[in-house]
Amino acid sequence: MADGSDWEPGEALRGIAELDLDRASRRGYPEAVYCEGKTAEQVGAIATEVGARGARTLFTRAGPEHAEAVLAQLPDAAHDATARLLAWPAEPPEPTGGDVLVVAAGTSDLPVATEALLVARHLGRRAEIVVDVGVAGLHRILSRLDRLRSARAIIVVAGMDGALPGVVAGLVSAPVIAVPTSVGYGAAFEGLAPLLTMLNSCAPGVAVVNINNGYGAGHLAAQIAEPHGP
Amino acid sequence: MADGSDWEPGEALRGIAELDLDRASRRGYPEAVYCEGKTAEQVGAIATEVGARGARTLFTRAGPEHAEAVLAQLPDAAHDATARLLAWPAEPPEPTGGDVLVVAAGTSDLPVATEALLVARHLGRRAEIVVDVGVAGLHRILSRLDRLRSARAIIVVAGMDGALPGVVAGLVSAPVIAVPTSVGYGAAFEGLAPLLTMLNSCAPGVAVVNINNGYGAGHLAAQIAEPHGP
Amino acid sequence: MADGSDWEPGEALRGIAELDLDRASRRGYPEAVYCEGKTAEQVGAIATEVGARGARTLFTRAGPEHAEAVLAQLPDAAHDATARLLAWPAEPPEPTGGDVLVVAAGTSDLPVATEALLVARHLGRRAEIVVDVGVAGLHRILSRLDRLRSARAIIVVAGMDGALPGVVAGLVSAPVIAVPTSVGYGAAFEGLAPLLTMLNSCAPGVAVVNINNGYGAGHLAAQIAEPHGP
Amino acid sequence: MADGSDWEPGEALRGIAELDLDRASRRGYPEAVYCEGKTAEQVGAIATEVGARGARTLFTRAGPEHAEAVLAQLPDAAHDATARLLAWPAEPPEPTGGDVLVVAAGTSDLPVATEALLVARHLGRRAEIVVDVGVAGLHRILSRLDRLRSARAIIVVAGMDGALPGVVAGLVSAPVIAVPTSVGYGAAFEGLAPLLTMLNSCAPGVAVVNINNGYGAGHLAAQIAEPHGP
Amino acid sequence: MADGSDWEPGEALRGIAELDLDRASRRGYPEAVYCEGKTAEQVGAIATEVGARGARTLFTRAGPEHAEAVLAQLPDAAHDATARLLAWPAEPPEPTGGDVLVVAAGTSDLPVATEALLVARHLGRRAEIVVDVGVAGLHRILSRLDRLRSARAIIVVAGMDGALPGVVAGLVSAPVIAVPTSVGYGAAFEGLAPLLTMLNSCAPGVAVVNINNGYGAGHLAAQIAEPHGP
Amino acid sequence: MADGSDWEPGEALRGIAELDLDRASRRGYPEAVYCEGKTAEQVGAIATEVGARGARTLFTRAGPEHAEAVLAQLPDAAHDATARLLAWPAEPPEPTGGDVLVVAAGTSDLPVATEALLVARHLGRRAEIVVDVGVAGLHRILSRLDRLRSARAIIVVAGMDGALPGVVAGLVSAPVIAVPTSVGYGAAFEGLAPLLTMLNSCAPGVAVVNINNGYGAGHLAAQIAEPHGP
Amino acid sequence: MADGSDWEPGEALRGIAELDLDRASRRGYPEAVYCEGKTAEQVGAIATEVGARGARTLFTRAGPEHAEAVLAQLPDAAHDATARLLAWPAEPPEPTGGDVLVVAAGTSDLPVATEALLVARHLGRRAEIVVDVGVAGLHRILSRLDRLRSARAIIVVAGMDGALPGVVAGLVSAPVIAVPTSVGYGAAFEGLAPLLTMLNSCAPGVAVVNINNGYGAGHLAAQIAEPHGP
Amino acid sequence: MADGSDWEPGEALRGIAELDLDRASRRGYPEAVYCEGKTAEQVGAIATEVGARGARTLFTRAGPEHAEAVLAQLPDAAHDATARLLAWPAEPPEPTGGDVLVVAAGTSDLPVATEALLVARHLGRRAEIVVDVGVAGLHRILSRLDRLRSARAIIVVAGMDGALPGVVAGLVSAPVIAVPTSVGYGAAFEGLAPLLTMLNSCAPGVAVVNINNGYGAGHLAAQIAEPHGP
Repeated sequence: MADGSDWEPGEALRGIAELDLDRASRRGYPEAVYCEGKTAEQVGAIATEVGARGARTLFTRAGPEHAEAVLAQLPDAAHDATARLLAWPAEPPEPTGGDVLVVAAGTSDLPVATEALLVARHLGRRAEIVVDVGVAGLHRILSRLDRLRSARAIIVVAGMDGALPGVVAGLVSAPVIAVPTSVGYGAAFEGLAPLLTMLNSCAPGVAVVNINNGYGAGHLAAQIAEPHGP
Repeated sequence: MADGSDWEPGEALRGIAELDLDRASRRGYPEAVYCEGKTAEQVGAIATEVGARGARTLFTRAGPEHAEAVLAQLPDAAHDATARLLAWPAEPPEPTGGDVLVVAAGTSDLPVATEALLVARHLGRRAEIVVDVGVAGLHRILSRLDRLRSARAIIVVAGMDGALPGVVAGLVSAPVIAVPTSVGYGAAFEGLAPLLTMLNSCAPGVAVVNINNGYGAGHLAAQIAEPHGP
Repeated sequence: MADGSDWEPGEALRGIAELDLDRASRRGYPEAVYCEGKTAEQVGAIATEVGARGARTLFTRAGPEHAEAVLAQLPDAAHDATARLLAWPAEPPEPTGGDVLVVAAGTSDLPVATEALLVARHLGRRAEIVVDVGVAGLHRILSRLDRLRSARAIIVVAGMDGALPGVVAGLVSAPVIAVPTSVGYGAAFEGLAPLLTMLNSCAPGVAVVNINNGYGAGHLAAQIAEPHGP
Repeated sequence: MADGSDWEPGEALRGIAELDLDRASRRGYPEAVYCEGKTAEQVGAIATEVGARGARTLFTRAGPEHAEAVLAQLPDAAHDATARLLAWPAEPPEPTGGDVLVVAAGTSDLPVATEALLVARHLGRRAEIVVDVGVAGLHRILSRLDRLRSARAIIVVAGMDGALPGVVAGLVSAPVIAVPTSVGYGAAFEGLAPLLTMLNSCAPGVAVVNINNGYGAGHLAAQIAEPHGP
Repeated sequence: MADGSDWEPGEALRGIAELDLDRASRRGYPEAVYCEGKTAEQVGAIATEVGARGARTLFTRAGPEHAEAVLAQLPDAAHDATARLLAWPAEPPEPTGGDVLVVAAGTSDLPVATEALLVARHLGRRAEIVVDVGVAGLHRILSRLDRLRSARAIIVVAGMDGALPGVVAGLVSAPVIAVPTSVGYGAAFEGLAPLLTMLNSCAPGVAVVNINNGYGAGHLAAQIAEPHGP
Repeated sequence: MADGSDWEPGEALRGIAELDLDRASRRGYPEAVYCEGKTAEQVGAIATEVGARGARTLFTRAGPEHAEAVLAQLPDAAHDATARLLAWPAEPPEPTGGDVLVVAAGTSDLPVATEALLVARHLGRRAEIVVDVGVAGLHRILSRLDRLRSARAIIVVAGMDGALPGVVAGLVSAPVIAVPTSVGYGAAFEGLAPLLTMLNSCAPGVAVVNINNGYGAGHLAAQIAEPHGP
Repeated sequence: MADGSDWEPGEALRGIAELDLDRASRRGYPEAVYCEGKTAEQVGAIATEVGARGARTLFTRAGPEHAEAVLAQLPDAAHDATARLLAWPAEPPEPTGGDVLVVAAGTSDLPVATEALLVARHLGRRAEIVVDVGVAGLHRILSRLDRLRSARAIIVVAGMDGALPGVVAGLVSAPVIAVPTSVGYGAAFEGLAPLLTMLNSCAPGVAVVNINNGYGAGHLAAQIAEPHGP
Repeated sequence: MADGSDWEPGEALRGIAELDLDRASRRGYPEAVYCEGKTAEQVGAIATEVGARGARTLFTRAGPEHAEAVLAQLPDAAHDATARLLAWPAEPPEPTGGDVLVVAAGTSDLPVATEALLVARHLGRRAEIVVDVGVAGLHRILSRLDRLRSARAIIVVAGMDGALPGVVAGLVSAPVIAVPTSVGYGAAFEGLAPLLTMLNSCAPGVAVVNINNGYGAGHLAAQIAEPHGP
């Protein structure tokens, strides 16, 4: 796979997108294409260019029509429908740095949690997931203390009351990345309630990202768990 | 102390308030006078009438000037400046029914928690308080499990992330009354954040009252822990 | 029906949910599975495990596809489409404790009110329902005073102005559990207006749960009306 | 008192205000000067001009410094400090049209209710006030049914849950003007909660004005109760 | 048509609705059935009862399926699909009292404005409508001054900036009933923007009802323009 | 093309819309018909009148059914489906005044940006567009400095964090018109987040219009870049 | 006055502020120092540097203590206490470009309107002000049509309903800069209501800036009315 | 300094606070006492206990009266009035791990930025600060690229539009911790605007903490820059 440094945008892309060619060199991480709000044609044109320049790329928030358009151009890309994510090339790089642990409060939080998990892996970290660990049954958290304490960065995905990240942060020394989801009854207000809970966490060490933003959480975790010299 | 049933409002009260004379007989609980927004003169006039009819009464959200006005008329009333509460007569009735436990997440929640505690007592329940039991240090909660499980109604007072009531509710079978407080950093939005957290509690069994409404929580706890025939 | 204490999770459940096995012993009430946001496959897998361990379980917020998946595994479960609820086993336990009364302000509030009613019954209480008792026609409330006063816990379900719980609480000594619904014109803001009304109730004794959360209300009512020794 | 029709603005007023000279002739009601946000000097200059042109005028939301500035120019003006209102001339006109009834839910709502009462009188209506008639004690409302039903327009002033206007509207055929006040615990959000309650009133016939806007309510009531030919 | 006073609810209605039988006698206006959130079956059952008791009734916010259910039971009812309104009997009563004028700011506001118009007529007032009179072209308003000034009550329906009611109120002496609609670009926030504008109207004499609540506006206008003795 | 000055509205239009005939003479810009919330029939009737009077007109926020209705009456109108815009006549006038530059932060912002671009052109300005210039890659902005500095008015369209307009404004002396879009993750709250960002821009010189309001931005840009005598 | 191009920051400024030295050359307008949230000492240190480099500078949102600190260093600066503005040098430059007109809806809007007026003048435009022109009395606007139509940019400052900018924009061809103020009753929500009104203006041609941001409005007006070659 | 492991709470502390004794051992970071909402007496009692057990402790959000109470008990504590922070012991530990860089957008953000800076140092990191680097002058950021790229964690403190963290994140590979402040004009809504901006950052790699929460940011940065084995 080439590094894309001497690549020129093709005709199809003109007027709809300008890829951030040097992001990998400038920031050290591959580019991601946010598909929501783009037409399938636009995403397809971008996928063509991605194939042409040969640099590792993620496609996030991809609906079925976006996925189809990407796979038409990059048939060997990996696609996870739950996470609404495509990755090209399909294989993540060899993992380096510290471990990332993703914790999902409930089964309904799985799409966002899976997106975070896969992003962390495609950005070069070893990452695992634990599901259904809500604060209503503390024993489910407490029985995972060892695993929680061995991670360099922990992503906690939760809707409803969003209380889990603060509880986890009180038990570990690694930073906790909190992702609110739009899961829950009316006064969860599409994720506003867990978002506010997380921002107000009593325990320090909680970093909050946008509602349902599994991509952002996975990216941040990969940065935090980056390998550093001794 | 008379039961107030044949009492007539005095002249001073006309045009400013109408006491709910039969609340005790109708609902079984004494009346409370909400002082905020009333002038000291108005509160003083009400206190005079309270003394005249002789029925048990609470004065809530009483600032120093309100307290002074009440004590001028009812010098033997009890006054707790932290809770901003006055009670007349000063002594609570002999406790009946189940036990009430008040849990305050932090020291800053003490004014509201104390109001709830005293109201429960003046409405006829045995009530105790536990302070500084935040979710950031779970061991502080877990070490009180026995005490939590012996209460018929538990009031949990918390600001910031407001996560404590949900955690407590997951550990007990008694109903938990959650009181959000306006304690915390900016995005707590004067109690909105813990209010939403509590309404969205993952654990069932959480009843929410208004921000800083210690009085309402104490009243509700007294009703829940009411004695009933076998 | 076994008590589930020596049950082990089956293969199908791994990675999607972890049932709170000891909730019945820890809290005294059966577990409920919140279906919204879960796929039919995930709910079906959970239903399989529920059947295997044999403990009483509720499935809430179940759409038609969730109901189908549950009934495929637990064909003798009870299903109420209005309340979006399934219960297994179908029969509620023999009722104990005090009576629960559910009051629905309008016909449009019936789905939420019915969920609360059925949950209270499946958690072991005698529960009845009264419909269309809005504050715009006070005579409809006043003509039910005896019934209201005989309940140990009253659930009031209302959208629009959400004024009914406060009016009812002013008439009785039992606690009132207020459930706002997302019924109404624009400025009801999907239930926010009745939620705020209920939180600000002038009458003490109003406990508020989340918008449309009939399950939470039924659960709380069952806890409040729990039988206690003399 | 002249009708102001041939009046010219004095020098002091230039650059700070332009009085709506023909409002009385155009709309049939005198002008009101909103004092909040104006300096005492500005209000004093306006008062001078009011005296010069000789037309009936109200000064609303007047703090002590505004009142002093008005009274220095118009020493025979009427001043009600509770209502923060000044009226010149001091005497209301001879009442015509239907009766206006002002109902205040609680003592804390008196400032706003009094403003509404006085404005209705100064705009030419017979107006009376009833205080402390909250929904928590329905008997207090029901005992006033005759008085409520004799009014052509009813103003209901309430904070907290704001439920009173809807209950009153369900009992009468006259229009109800609802005025939310900023009285109450945290989640009343400075009047937002009663405002929403009133806008969502189940009973039709409720007209809502701004939070604490007693002036607007009194004005509207005077217009509704205006005399009309047979 | 009978007056419904000796009517008994039929079997089909039990458990889903309780009609407010004496509203006509108590308040002087017929009942309205709010269809949104009710099933077609429930609305049909109510329509059957309406026919049985024979009292004038409106069905508001009726979707196609509700309309079909009503017309199956009351084939001679009037149906306006734009206003989502059904009226039975189809003919409004002979008009009495003052005139009502409905002003719609734009064509998109027609559904709500038409609902208000028809409700005012079915409640016994002479009512007319004027369309597309936004503040962006003042000449369109100014050319209707005579018509505006001849009405006893004016309903102004507007979305977007909601500025029209205040401008109209500044030109007339009759009360203006302002109805915000959910018409407009993003920051209209589904009617919140015009709602706030109307509540903050600089001109006194503006009464606000809920977003899109044409029914409430028509009802209020009918009450304001009620005939009174000389 | 006639100037419409002696045109009379046709029969079909009565009761649904009143065109602002003299807007071109009064304000110097053609009228625009906002299609959202109008039926296809209503839009078709307006198109007929537009053809009859012969004055330049835009149709904004036109869905496919609106477009079809317009094109049936004005088959030579221009239609851009992305921008949801129709223009009649199809050709913009000869450009005068200064240049307008439209900058779109991302591909998903193209519909709104294209609407702004076309409106500016149809109102008589030379206008160009630049796409995908987000703040996450500053080099993409900095490489366009010359082009940015040559425009008399710059429209910047952005969702998500909405940071681009402030960054651009810090680099140029021309006014920047900021258009927030409803593109982004949950806490963008349908455009509220970029709207607030733009209103709070650190750099002066940012004028904000409504969320997704490409029409308003294009109109404003045309006014700012209007030709003036020396 | 030097142009500041070869100036070096003094010692006192290190660690508290970094002046944007080349803003005048880069953007063509002088720098402004926002005083709110800065200590008097910090503002004084900045003033010292301003004097040293000799470039035109404004100090906005300056409280009395800030003004004192500036005048101690720059005794010949102009200070307007109403507008909370200081300008150095005191004299505005010779005016060029088109005229700016500032319109204040009410006397209470004067502080913000005056800030806009003075900023436009100090940025090199001829600027005048008109006061007390609310929409409640349209004749006050209509009598100024000539003056409104002669301006190249119009700033409209309004609180409460914020309706004035839209009405003005409907009458002129110049762009209107709308400035919401925090003047008004409760539901104005500190300026949120007029802000939303202005963003939703029916008339195109309205550019909105932040609440109370007179500085931003004056700056934007100066940019719009900039002189351009023929 | 002792490690506090065998310490027992003194009498004065009972009933007001329970220190989290083993936080240092459990999480690796010292405890912090949040002073806001606590009385000076309560803070003084806590300070006494801190001295008795001898473990490193911070006091955050300390007003002058809190500072006095702490210094009375711990006269050798460090106190920074701008940051409202006290630290005991006064000297930070010897720095380990990666570097932390604090960037303040403006001078008004200094109190929050300084709190973050000092907390990072007292938690064991080397930390520096850069001030007045807003997005309105990009050259100020670009000239610091080397310094930005050498940090292991970057804290960016900004009010108003809150755009700076996203711009910085686009330039570096280290995680950016964004702290919104309540600095700015009205529509900044006490920090809500920059909070939303930061949550919606286009550039991945932005972790958000609560408004004005410099303590949380400093703590998180210290965790991220923690030393790890090779």
